[in-house]
Amino acid sequence: MRLFGLTLTTLAATAVAFTALADGHTKALEGAVQARKASMSTIGYHTGLLGAMAKGEAPYDAAIATAAAENLAAAASMNRIVFWIEGSEQGAIEGSRAKPEIWSDAAGFEESAMALETAAAAMVTAAGTDLESLRAAMGPVGKSCGDCHKAYRGPRN
Amino acid sequence: MRLFGLTLTTLAATAVAFTALADGHTKALEGAVQARKASMSTIGYHTGLLGAMAKGEAPYDAAIATAAAENLAAAASMNRIVFWIEGSEQGAIEGSRAKPEIWSDAAGFEESAMALETAAAAMVTAAGTDLESLRAAMGPVGKSCGDCHKAYRGPRN
Repeated sequence: MRLFGLTLTTLAATAVAFTALADGHTKALEGAVQARKASMSTIGYHTGLLGAMAKGEAPYDAAIATAAAENLAAAASMNRIVFWIEGSEQGAIEGSRAKPEIWSDAAGFEESAMALETAAAAMVTAAGTDLESLRAAMGPVGKSCGDCHKAYRGPRN
Repeated sequence: MRLFGLTLTTLAATAVAFTALADGHTKALEGAVQARKASMSTIGYHTGLLGAMAKGEAPYDAAIATAAAENLAAAASMNRIVFWIEGSEQGAIEGSRAKPEIWSDAAGFEESAMALETAAAAMVTAAGTDLESLRAAMGPVGKSCGDCHKAYRGPRN
């Protein structure tokens, strides 16, 4: 009985440790999803500032446009290994809209993410030049957003 | 009457235009507040990853620590002119916790923000070196967060 009791205690302790580990892992994945949302908000905000100038909804201001482009480029070029953690796809973690293709087609996803990095880097120079340059640089930025969302973002939750 | 009618129309049109402008400006300020929250989330997420390793809650991993530090540094060094727009202080814009001192003591705020930039830049090197270096670099990161919040962040809304 004592042995049985000990075994049960050990089993229970193991189960608790495993649950804690699983909880910790789920928390890590939930954190990554929230961090991705924050990253997308940052990208969206700065793209929105540039887009408003491109569309004539806001006056063109070289300093603000450059700042927005710099921040867009900084957000786009963040290291992705801490954001796109396997197991955080849509359906697995609440709020996630990540398609499994992000991991099953990792090379394609990387290429898609690099398209924004490249477009944002070009925008840094263009944004401070003049409104025409900013407008021309908006195309690749918008295209990279749309292409990536089409291929790797699931429907609204 | 016709003149009076025209005048009223003109006044009404002016009022509409002014409201649209005011609405646009409020939207811009609301957008800035949301962008700041996203930025703080990004800073918090990466600081959290580093802090978990420092406290032994997560295993030390040089690659993940470096990625987190790089992203923290990128977020900390974003151009602040598009985030901290005057008029977006607590009480003026919903959700804002920005104290008016951010603008009335702009030099102090800049110094405070630079403290995080400096601490995050040091973390980029430290994080990939070893756990002891990472731990040592956490102090200035945490201090810069706390100092800035104490001086420039208002109470919970």
